[in-house]
Amino acid sequence: MNFPAIITEKKLGHPLSDEAIATFVRGAADGSVPDYQLAALLMAIRLNGMDARETTTLTMEMARSGDMLHPDLGGMVVDKHSTGGVGDTTTLVLVPLCAACGAKIAKMSGRGLGHTGGTVDKMESIGMRTDLPEDEFLRQVREIGCAVVGQSAELAPADKTLYALRDTTSTVDSLPLIASSIMSKKLAAGAEGIVLDVKVGSGAIMPTYEGSLMLAQTMVEIGTRAGRHVSALLTGMNEPLGSHVGNRLEVKEAIEILRGESAGPLLTVSLRLGAQLLIASGLANTAAQGEKMLRAALEEGRGLEKLRQLIRAQGGDESVCDHPQVLADAPVIREIISDADGYIAAMDTMQIGYASLELGAGRKKKSDIIDPRVGFIVNARIGDHVACGQPLYTLYAADTDSAVRAEHMLRIAIHLSDHSVPPEKLLYALVTPEGVQTL
Amino acid sequence: MNFPAIITEKKLGHPLSDEAIATFVRGAADGSVPDYQLAALLMAIRLNGMDARETTTLTMEMARSGDMLHPDLGGMVVDKHSTGGVGDTTTLVLVPLCAACGAKIAKMSGRGLGHTGGTVDKMESIGMRTDLPEDEFLRQVREIGCAVVGQSAELAPADKTLYALRDTTSTVDSLPLIASSIMSKKLAAGAEGIVLDVKVGSGAIMPTYEGSLMLAQTMVEIGTRAGRHVSALLTGMNEPLGSHVGNRLEVKEAIEILRGESAGPLLTVSLRLGAQLLIASGLANTAAQGEKMLRAALEEGRGLEKLRQLIRAQGGDESVCDHPQVLADAPVIREIISDADGYIAAMDTMQIGYASLELGAGRKKKSDIIDPRVGFIVNARIGDHVACGQPLYTLYAADTDSAVRAEHMLRIAIHLSDHSVPPEKLLYALVTPEGVQTL
Repeated sequence: MNFPAIITEKKLGHPLSDEAIATFVRGAADGSVPDYQLAALLMAIRLNGMDARETTTLTMEMARSGDMLHPDLGGMVVDKHSTGGVGDTTTLVLVPLCAACGAKIAKMSGRGLGHTGGTVDKMESIGMRTDLPEDEFLRQVREIGCAVVGQSAELAPADKTLYALRDTTSTVDSLPLIASSIMSKKLAAGAEGIVLDVKVGSGAIMPTYEGSLMLAQTMVEIGTRAGRHVSALLTGMNEPLGSHVGNRLEVKEAIEILRGESAGPLLTVSLRLGAQLLIASGLANTAAQGEKMLRAALEEGRGLEKLRQLIRAQGGDESVCDHPQVLADAPVIREIISDADGYIAAMDTMQIGYASLELGAGRKKKSDIIDPRVGFIVNARIGDHVACGQPLYTLYAADTDSAVRAEHMLRIAIHLSDHSVPPEKLLYALVTPEGVQTL
Repeated sequence: MNFPAIITEKKLGHPLSDEAIATFVRGAADGSVPDYQLAALLMAIRLNGMDARETTTLTMEMARSGDMLHPDLGGMVVDKHSTGGVGDTTTLVLVPLCAACGAKIAKMSGRGLGHTGGTVDKMESIGMRTDLPEDEFLRQVREIGCAVVGQSAELAPADKTLYALRDTTSTVDSLPLIASSIMSKKLAAGAEGIVLDVKVGSGAIMPTYEGSLMLAQTMVEIGTRAGRHVSALLTGMNEPLGSHVGNRLEVKEAIEILRGESAGPLLTVSLRLGAQLLIASGLANTAAQGEKMLRAALEEGRGLEKLRQLIRAQGGDESVCDHPQVLADAPVIREIISDADGYIAAMDTMQIGYASLELGAGRKKKSDIIDPRVGFIVNARIGDHVACGQPLYTLYAADTDSAVRAEHMLRIAIHLSDHSVPPEKLLYALVTPEGVQTL
């Protein structure tokens, strides 16, 4: 099939045939279609969309473009995926808790991208290895119930090509392209149960609730058709989820939660997602039962013990579990003080994410090196009252210059109001093959 | 300015700033923006359009991306451009006739592209040189009143990059991209008077009359703003214009017309366009006066004599002017006979153009070599009655295989009806800075 004819079909708004989609994916995986033709088709897909059949075919072809794993670990293998957020450290909280309850979690995680952080970067910030070979990865899941590694290059190679192109051609924000990118990797990695955390709000990949809901429904449908147990939670991202943003700082917050010294929205969302993982694993029948099991693991310190095992197994420094405060250290530490009284009415969460990049906590381009020390603690949430002179953020920077730039971005990201403002919605809906349940 | 941000603006349907357009054109001309980002922006422009200000800025930036010529030839220098058609040999008819009436025509022509033929290929088919250096080109215009050469690489280099990309990314059919591509080259070449032949119908680049009219109006507006004398004729392309398709065959038809042995729609359109060129040159005040001058040149044999000078000046074999029938020769010549009675109701002109490519008269890819001998004569026009057994086409092929393939395509390109059908409209409208005059 000639590639310009495929581009023409989508340009005219017609659905692509299964054969055309296969040609597209094969061309991306083996390099037989030049980048500029792939880019033109990506933009046509971004602007003219894809229907459910096209999106499913695209996902399955991308999954099959490389290795398809079928790990045998003596139990349902489950995985969790987030569409990406700021201060979104749920993996480091829920993986130990779920494993402590008997789940088998073979998780592949991503690196930070755009304004959002990545679990792999957070783990490497305390010296953990994230490039375990497949046999070691699976042995670890068998032995301690969990392992978290980076995405293997052999899984869904078509996605690797397309993802890099999307990032530089302004075609990231396309529902079929997001859904197929996420689900192709999950299906190829072989997880039998998949729990998706689809973010809603100013820091989310899809800007509207309707967009996020449609994305969640599309991914649940694709996974279900592929024979996997899939559910999705829609959760709030109009402000950072945890209070800590930055790699070591986020590890610190996760440890403090597992030590029982901290709680808040990050714990709430982690427990909800974890309960879905326990259901997918066949270890709980209801979300309430799952959450009860997780709370018991938390209170009895079994979650913290499992995190210790996970850090040790992947070569990190487990002593941070006993002294998390060592993770909050940087050459320049300063408070950002409110210069007015008021209620926090809104946060530009994407801007807050970009401020962490400005400090060096993420990458502006692929070759950037992350500084594990830098980031900030957000001391207030939407709805809180702040007084003039009260600290809004505690900043951890490598030098004064970057601190000044980040401070400017962080200040304009917070909007104050004279009137009281309700706190943000945290849990929107649960999407399963049976339908949407508003929370 | 960062390029993904420019792509984002157009993706969201916003107009691009002049600065953004300048970055785009500079990036295309000097290679500083990678092909895949240019391709994504081209598709976003194809799907979301450009307003008049954007299209004008794009054209002027493209014109200025290379040399800007200002030929001084002691008189208004004029040029004609067609948006491309099948059997469209007007240049070889009107250039000699206009030069015989005193016009100074310094014409840059294109090669065949897609289903449409190119004047440069036709000239080379009788041994003419089309790569004259600038000084020789201008000297020839001074001496005999006309010269026709290929596009210089130094003119509008941004267009060269973008044109090649558009051809392979299905972004040819975009009004702002067509208008800027045509007009940037004409403005850079320095013509003071420009006559545009905008085709309408099944063999035209814009499929609808409305699209063709808007294209004509856009180009006239751009040229007028740039201080040039511009007019556009909208002419029919629902069937081949001349009866001959293929390089030497089309030269043969042009010579037969200048010898007074043939007439028909190709002559009619050539006279109308030529009259506009004489007006632009200041040699005629009205179209009627211009046509009268051209008819006199034709009848007195001055057009044929001028063609002879043109062929000789550019190194071709002028004896073809005396024996045009030598140009109709190929290894395989066969008639394609109608297998039914009926009126010709419609022709798929694009398909007819592609049949000539199948024979080798054009290029499927850039590196293909044209066979000057091949093509066909179309023996009937829309509205004509044909009897079963009557020849529809006379085919000139290099071998039997290509003849069979082309015959199949040519047969299905003609649709017969039992009822009588009116002949096709040939002249639609004249567009000038003053407005649209329906013809």
